[in-house]
Amino acid sequence: MSHLILTLMKHRSLFIIAAFFLFCASSSIAQKRQLTLDDAVLYYQKGLMPERPAGFQWVKNSLTYTTLEDQRGTLQFHHLLDPKRDHALKAQEIMPGMETFPRISWINPHQFYFSKDHAYYIFDTSTKKLEKVLEYPAEAQNLDYSVAGKKLAYTIGNNLYIATKDNPKIAIAEVKDTNIVSGQAIARFEFGITKGTFWSPSGDYLAFYRKNETNVFNYPLVNINTYPASLRNIKYPMNGQGSEIPSTFIYSTLTGKYTRLKTKMDDHYLTNFAWSPSEKAVYLAEVNRDQNHMKLNKYDPKSGQLLKTVTEEKNEKWVEPETPPFMIKSLKRKMFWLSEKDGFMNIYVFDEKKKKTKQLTHNKWVINSILGYSPQLNAIIFTGTGENPLNTHAFAVNLKTGRQTQITKGDGTHSVSLGGPDNNYLLEELSSPKIPRKIGYYNLADGQYHQIFSAKNPLKDVQLGTTEIIKLKSYDGADLYARLIKPSNFDPNKKYPVLVYVYGGPHVQLITNRWNYGEPLWMKWMAEQGYLIFSLDGHGSGNRGFAFESEVFRNLGTHEMEDQLIGVDYLKRQKFVDPKRLAVHGWSFGGFMTTSLMLRHPGVFTTGVAGGPVIDWKWYEVMYGERYMDTEATNPEGFKKSSLLNYVKNLKGHLLTIHGTVDDVVVPQHDYAFIKKCVDEGVQTDFYPYPMHPHNVRGKDRVHLMRKVLDYVMEHNR
Amino acid sequence: MSHLILTLMKHRSLFIIAAFFLFCASSSIAQKRQLTLDDAVLYYQKGLMPERPAGFQWVKNSLTYTTLEDQRGTLQFHHLLDPKRDHALKAQEIMPGMETFPRISWINPHQFYFSKDHAYYIFDTSTKKLEKVLEYPAEAQNLDYSVAGKKLAYTIGNNLYIATKDNPKIAIAEVKDTNIVSGQAIARFEFGITKGTFWSPSGDYLAFYRKNETNVFNYPLVNINTYPASLRNIKYPMNGQGSEIPSTFIYSTLTGKYTRLKTKMDDHYLTNFAWSPSEKAVYLAEVNRDQNHMKLNKYDPKSGQLLKTVTEEKNEKWVEPETPPFMIKSLKRKMFWLSEKDGFMNIYVFDEKKKKTKQLTHNKWVINSILGYSPQLNAIIFTGTGENPLNTHAFAVNLKTGRQTQITKGDGTHSVSLGGPDNNYLLEELSSPKIPRKIGYYNLADGQYHQIFSAKNPLKDVQLGTTEIIKLKSYDGADLYARLIKPSNFDPNKKYPVLVYVYGGPHVQLITNRWNYGEPLWMKWMAEQGYLIFSLDGHGSGNRGFAFESEVFRNLGTHEMEDQLIGVDYLKRQKFVDPKRLAVHGWSFGGFMTTSLMLRHPGVFTTGVAGGPVIDWKWYEVMYGERYMDTEATNPEGFKKSSLLNYVKNLKGHLLTIHGTVDDVVVPQHDYAFIKKCVDEGVQTDFYPYPMHPHNVRGKDRVHLMRKVLDYVMEHNR
Repeated sequence: MSHLILTLMKHRSLFIIAAFFLFCASSSIAQKRQLTLDDAVLYYQKGLMPERPAGFQWVKNSLTYTTLEDQRGTLQFHHLLDPKRDHALKAQEIMPGMETFPRISWINPHQFYFSKDHAYYIFDTSTKKLEKVLEYPAEAQNLDYSVAGKKLAYTIGNNLYIATKDNPKIAIAEVKDTNIVSGQAIARFEFGITKGTFWSPSGDYLAFYRKNETNVFNYPLVNINTYPASLRNIKYPMNGQGSEIPSTFIYSTLTGKYTRLKTKMDDHYLTNFAWSPSEKAVYLAEVNRDQNHMKLNKYDPKSGQLLKTVTEEKNEKWVEPETPPFMIKSLKRKMFWLSEKDGFMNIYVFDEKKKKTKQLTHNKWVINSILGYSPQLNAIIFTGTGENPLNTHAFAVNLKTGRQTQITKGDGTHSVSLGGPDNNYLLEELSSPKIPRKIGYYNLADGQYHQIFSAKNPLKDVQLGTTEIIKLKSYDGADLYARLIKPSNFDPNKKYPVLVYVYGGPHVQLITNRWNYGEPLWMKWMAEQGYLIFSLDGHGSGNRGFAFESEVFRNLGTHEMEDQLIGVDYLKRQKFVDPKRLAVHGWSFGGFMTTSLMLRHPGVFTTGVAGGPVIDWKWYEVMYGERYMDTEATNPEGFKKSSLLNYVKNLKGHLLTIHGTVDDVVVPQHDYAFIKKCVDEGVQTDFYPYPMHPHNVRGKDRVHLMRKVLDYVMEHNR
Repeated sequence: MSHLILTLMKHRSLFIIAAFFLFCASSSIAQKRQLTLDDAVLYYQKGLMPERPAGFQWVKNSLTYTTLEDQRGTLQFHHLLDPKRDHALKAQEIMPGMETFPRISWINPHQFYFSKDHAYYIFDTSTKKLEKVLEYPAEAQNLDYSVAGKKLAYTIGNNLYIATKDNPKIAIAEVKDTNIVSGQAIARFEFGITKGTFWSPSGDYLAFYRKNETNVFNYPLVNINTYPASLRNIKYPMNGQGSEIPSTFIYSTLTGKYTRLKTKMDDHYLTNFAWSPSEKAVYLAEVNRDQNHMKLNKYDPKSGQLLKTVTEEKNEKWVEPETPPFMIKSLKRKMFWLSEKDGFMNIYVFDEKKKKTKQLTHNKWVINSILGYSPQLNAIIFTGTGENPLNTHAFAVNLKTGRQTQITKGDGTHSVSLGGPDNNYLLEELSSPKIPRKIGYYNLADGQYHQIFSAKNPLKDVQLGTTEIIKLKSYDGADLYARLIKPSNFDPNKKYPVLVYVYGGPHVQLITNRWNYGEPLWMKWMAEQGYLIFSLDGHGSGNRGFAFESEVFRNLGTHEMEDQLIGVDYLKRQKFVDPKRLAVHGWSFGGFMTTSLMLRHPGVFTTGVAGGPVIDWKWYEVMYGERYMDTEATNPEGFKKSSLLNYVKNLKGHLLTIHGTVDDVVVPQHDYAFIKKCVDEGVQTDFYPYPMHPHNVRGKDRVHLMRKVLDYVMEHNR
């Protein structure tokens, strides 16, 4: 409707018609309810997120999931071949008195396991028998259960334990020195690392990471919830300083013996751990601290010896392996590996039998993950953007012919998982600008799609503005995708202030073809206050390939800002934009960008709000920071140019910075040192702390945060 | 001039004349220069403080001081009896190449000592000989030099040392345990304690305080000047928690032996230490932790035994001895003691010979200090407010007749010191609303005054508004003194916004009869921005006697606010005040008052700026806090009523709180916990930290602070 009005308004003679339409529009709008900021921020609790059945899982011949209607007390079995065999299982049938269906994992077509009240259980759907497998201590964290071994690995503090049927707490790695941390993720969750324990397929062996943080400085955070306030030290490896020393151990539950993989004992990175299906080998992608040289190494888990280097990769900028090699038993001695060495993440296959390496895909777009292997198609199933980087699709690439086909259809974010009989089905959860949520599956054999669930639009009775996607050209000709949100009563003859929301850093893509184009709902609220909200993914952002992303190397901020200013130029060309009332807001890297824009391009924005901003990359962590910036010693110009301490005097307009007081990602030193510099130089800024919040302000306090941010913008961007 | 215009403006018929006068006024104003905020805050560096010769000191028959004209390179000798004998001494005569005259102290009519480059020297003005007495380490602190003993006591870290001619570092109290602190002030500088070492008159004995802080919690402050930020723990005894255990030692330099005074080893207070002139006794005022019972005890320094309790005092509220007993050799076995047990600080004399105790003064106003004894008058010379609590005067009270006479004349703050031949002269430095600074002396024998120096008005070319003192009545009939500042172009027909500057806590008096009535110059700057600035000293504030001050007992904030609201009522009755545009600002206790007023009397002020505010007395220190509030365990209602955490929801208008990040007086926990509560309750406030600043923001950064404060007021008090 609003688009129509725009068109009409261009023609003065049609003014009356336009006015009529405007009347219709506003009267229909009047029936809708106003969005509150509380609603917008707490949309999940307020029922404004598209509904979603939970726990979709493949089991032989069936998909199982819990429904919405009975508050998830029932597990639905959807038979893929014969709908008549659909049936349901109630939580109470598993355990008397249990009302909510637990998160389950299928072991085989008849059995699943789940965890409840510090115990693991196996339930047999044929015999309806419940078996308590093991118990574990209440304080256990980082739980990792081996189906095959019926064992649980977990950590308490810095130590690693196993629970079995007979013993809930067997010390695997237990030392008093808290600098030695076992069984947890290392490298601060970079390189795709999410955990620190890896059961072998049989469950006989447990591989685990250990890190020695003796060389890593403590960063002092303060806990104000005690009386008096108390110290909360965290280990924080800062750029150029001492980092953690990682190692990888294999523990045999059969012999009780340990093997350390014979990796170099220094501060390089041990990433992407994987077991071979046969358990005869393990793989590590090893990256030097400078992050420009990667070796994918194969080790003997028995002896710890290096067997061979499968592949290695060097890059003048950086190498960033993020996905463990993919192997399955049925594709014996074949290993699939994702690399962006040709500029885009593509699949490579190493065939040990044939002693051959082959590039399997040759896309000029980004592959995100390998889902699995479909025997029927003899294809690797994977996800990637396809030609339009705003989408996520599933694809199949035939191992013999190399022919690649797109499985999922239409613009959108297609989240998929492979399973069903013969791994022949693809479960799809679709979110697109027009579809809040739709769930169904594809039969890979015939390509047929079967819908299971479709969510209603939870916002249909809410008065909302519009969102449009804009394609711009960057300085180097690259496409830039931007998003513009307008109020429901948008009038193209008015001049609107604009809030630019920015992130701008690696790995993140703000604008995607998903429900509401990925925008948070507060943007629609802000639009209703008479604002336009604009975002743009520039160079450095994710899902666009290595060249686009790595443009920022050793020089964070500069090119990212060029792209943001292309967005600003676009805005200024729009008649409905008030070019003197632009504000900018962002968090984390977006806080860095916001502060950079305010200080390095003063006068463009009247107002900036920077949350958890990086101020100087020397205070950021080793893993992420050295990848993009190297160190202050090796890249002094880059550090000087990007440090916002050096531009404080430039500030024009209003700048509010915000920090969680126990931020362990961008430590509070960034903001306090920035403010100190502002005070030193007589520059007035604003600041607000969120006490006891970490890097992000979550939960109900996020309403306070967003009101703080948006009030500040509305008050100062005048 | 401006007053005349005001009068004229009342009569419409005189408008033309008024306009004429206005023209004259503005043209005369135009010749004056505008005060900048930089000038106002950095008035000392900017030459806007009344000039002052330095280092006035009595020496037999003379006063000595360094002049302004030669950048203090010369010491002037002003002969009291014969001006022809005035002469001068150049710094270079003392030490070749020395350009600035050092701070000196006279030992006898011919010799003075001074410290330079980590050494102490004696200079003989007769022989012109310079003697290096001793050297001491560069890191020494808390220097305490004994003239008689030619020894220096000092501390390094938590330990105590002595330097002599032969040895710059003799360990007197040296332990590794940093919980044991020797030779420093104890009780966090309460009870008039300013230091921790006390040389005996002969210099043979060194008395020193020791505190054991094992039971005192560490409070973690964060130093962001290191890379990465680092912990700066301070010992901070919080209300109701473990406190320091003090003791007092006597060290004999003759024998090398130590005696500990046999005081109870608990957390009571050892205050007001004094040596008897004979060195046969030492005195301590001992106060129980609850601070309602004081004993003035006499100990034998040789054995450490308690000899007797000279006097004791109990009070339902508190007892707060702040001045050591006064004794001199010539008044053998007489001891003078200040106590406010009759409601006002008066002098009591204990005559050991006659075994008699006598109240020497009976004033209904406050005595501040005993200056000494004048043999010629047979009188104790002391300072006090006199009938007008805004003044400070010197008085003499005859020991025989008890007759009291006022020595200094006229309204003002008369800062005095006794000396000259036979202790018969009183040096006076006068500051009064009309006199920037005047220095002279009285001959006590004949009462004659001799002027030495008169400072010019450093603000005479600056365009400034006016200050007036207003006397109001409190709820109990007590006089309240208030101060109102108006802009230079004040127009009584306009409606002005008002900034109320508040302190309100014990021991402080904002409004006194001194230059500019004690107002900081930024108030005059703010007045020129079209503001009225108002302050009022209410119940609880200093120099008004025990009843007036102790009204606040166990209930800080409540009565203090009643008085502030009497001030607000006065303001609202003035036609030239805009009652809807009142703002309030204060620091420390004044920050507590500001926040209290915003939350417990919402709607009175549109805007508040609270610096370093106490938010909840449970987080304040034991010594000060338990005196006024007792503990949360013994006074739960008082703590509940005064805790600003309990009123967050009430906030109307704008509240900015400010905190130094290394504030070791009102620890940052106050502000962060307050903000956390505001976030919890969805209340929007503002905050600004001053990184690496302690309880007050001093130096050039104070300009930034005052701009932050006053900008905030001007922006929001609309």
